[in-house]
Amino acid sequence: MSGWVVVAGLGPGHQAMITPEVSAALAGATDVVGYIPYVRRIAPRKGLVRHESDNRVELDRARHALDMALAGRRVVLISSGDPGVFAMASALFEAVETGPLPWRDLDIRVLPGVTAMLAAAARAGAPLGHDFCAINLSDNLKPWQVIARRLRLAVEADFAMALYNPRSTSRPEGFGRALEILRETCEAKRIVIFARAVSTPDEALRVVTLAEARPEMADMRTVVLIGSSATRVIPRKGAPFVYTPRSVRP
Amino acid sequence: MSGWVVVAGLGPGHQAMITPEVSAALAGATDVVGYIPYVRRIAPRKGLVRHESDNRVELDRARHALDMALAGRRVVLISSGDPGVFAMASALFEAVETGPLPWRDLDIRVLPGVTAMLAAAARAGAPLGHDFCAINLSDNLKPWQVIARRLRLAVEADFAMALYNPRSTSRPEGFGRALEILRETCEAKRIVIFARAVSTPDEALRVVTLAEARPEMADMRTVVLIGSSATRVIPRKGAPFVYTPRSVRP
Repeated sequence: MSGWVVVAGLGPGHQAMITPEVSAALAGATDVVGYIPYVRRIAPRKGLVRHESDNRVELDRARHALDMALAGRRVVLISSGDPGVFAMASALFEAVETGPLPWRDLDIRVLPGVTAMLAAAARAGAPLGHDFCAINLSDNLKPWQVIARRLRLAVEADFAMALYNPRSTSRPEGFGRALEILRETCEAKRIVIFARAVSTPDEALRVVTLAEARPEMADMRTVVLIGSSATRVIPRKGAPFVYTPRSVRP
Repeated sequence: MSGWVVVAGLGPGHQAMITPEVSAALAGATDVVGYIPYVRRIAPRKGLVRHESDNRVELDRARHALDMALAGRRVVLISSGDPGVFAMASALFEAVETGPLPWRDLDIRVLPGVTAMLAAAARAGAPLGHDFCAINLSDNLKPWQVIARRLRLAVEADFAMALYNPRSTSRPEGFGRALEILRETCEAKRIVIFARAVSTPDEALRVVTLAEARPEMADMRTVVLIGSSATRVIPRKGAPFVYTPRSVRP
């Protein structure tokens, strides 16, 4: 039997947000490879080998998956969210491009999923309801200057924004700097949404203004959404609805 | 029994990309409301009223859903893709904000889904694997100048891009103008992906350079992905893989 690699997104956390397509791939796999907490979301079963891998070794993990597929195994490489958004799909193709030629002709498929910003936006209302951008704030793989420049241009374009990986223990200062750039360029009432661990038991959602936003409101399980200048808050008895209108007036 | 409105995304087309959470909401609904072709994707069953609505009447459709929920019905308002990305969620909250006060305290939930750009990106590889933006090219609801400005700033920020609604019969010329702006500002070898009706029987994927891209390659069922300056193509026997690396070199 010939092997394959499927790169699959498990969504933001809740089982009910995993697509049936991804569940079917997992049911047909001989091996599942991924970062430890994601692999532990997959129930053990006979005939399935679960390979837990450390954080920050994405290329090794991808090569391991490709090696196994070449040997005839049916491998699901898992990410949280959508594998194509700041997750494993890009690492897999980097491994393919720089690896042995036979890897290129493997059966490799990417299965999309619900990425963190879409789950976060849904909880708040529709803050990404108009043009928006997604920026990874981690400066592990790019210089801070690139991040700063992109933030400024995104404000100039008046995009709503989703900021991934705002804060980790190894780089706690980046998100504070991002907030400073936003404060220099946006009005104080700009809406900021801190969405933590959406769809898990640890879910917490907080809607504040840019003036109220503090770096400590984000951790590594948070995605931060920044409204555009048009984003609106609808007050009500419970948590307010936040949305960005579909129209831009001339 | 008290009514509710769930705004749900049906994903790009294939049933296997509908999340179990959305399927469960549909199973518990008394009414489903949406644009005709989406409503027809929902199987008829006893106890479910399907309300088909024309294109471009999003606010009327949202008000109809809210009215029914206030009367105690359990209503699913459906979109394709993710409801928060150029779809029904923003229209619903616009209706809530401008409508009668009791609508604000209804049980309203948005359930995320797989939006077109993520399904398209997955088919091509990982072209949105680094910072990216999503721009709606429809100028029904915003002036063309805003679109043009955002395209130029997105190129300056070196975002990969997903362009929604590139072309319709009522405004065939917008996408041609967008390509002109991209040709003025990007290198001729910039990667352009035309992803049509991904996950449906009509699926077609085309990877070309900006120099080769033509307005007629897109229609209203196409999402167009533009690579960043770093996006790479991996040649192989079948369709090439396209990915944007996770790293930006200083």
